[in-house]
Amino acid sequence: MAELPIAPVTRIVRNAGAERVSEDASQELARLLEAYGDKIARKAVSLARHAGRRTVKREDLIEAAE
Amino acid sequence: MAELPIAPVTRIVRNAGAERVSEDASQELARLLEAYGDKIARKAVSLARHAGRRTVKREDLIEAAE
Repeated sequence: MAELPIAPVTRIVRNAGAERVSEDASQELARLLEAYGDKIARKAVSLARHAGRRTVKREDLIEAAE
Repeated sequence: MAELPIAPVTRIVRNAGAERVSEDASQELARLLEAYGDKIARKAVSLARHAGRRTVKREDLIEAAE
């Protein structure tokens, strides 16, 4: 956890129409994105292994997110 | 879009157990995270406005993600 930098996450909220964003709001969204990313990534790792690969590929992420 | 840097997204996949991660896999996960972040952020902006605020707060993100 704590992998994503805060500034780009704040930009995602601004791009969505926010006039102002509190710092803990950005931190919360970063936390949510990492939790979601971890969930999808774990599925993708499992799908790659299932396919006999050590490399996680784009197709694994796409399948994992379905 | 294209807000999140790729290196931290690759680390999320490695932390989930990947031995190797193709570059387009990381780009795909970044795309998925931004799409999810945009969806949650739009809801949070709407909830902040509904509460009569111009500042998006942590509580808006939490409510938006439920």
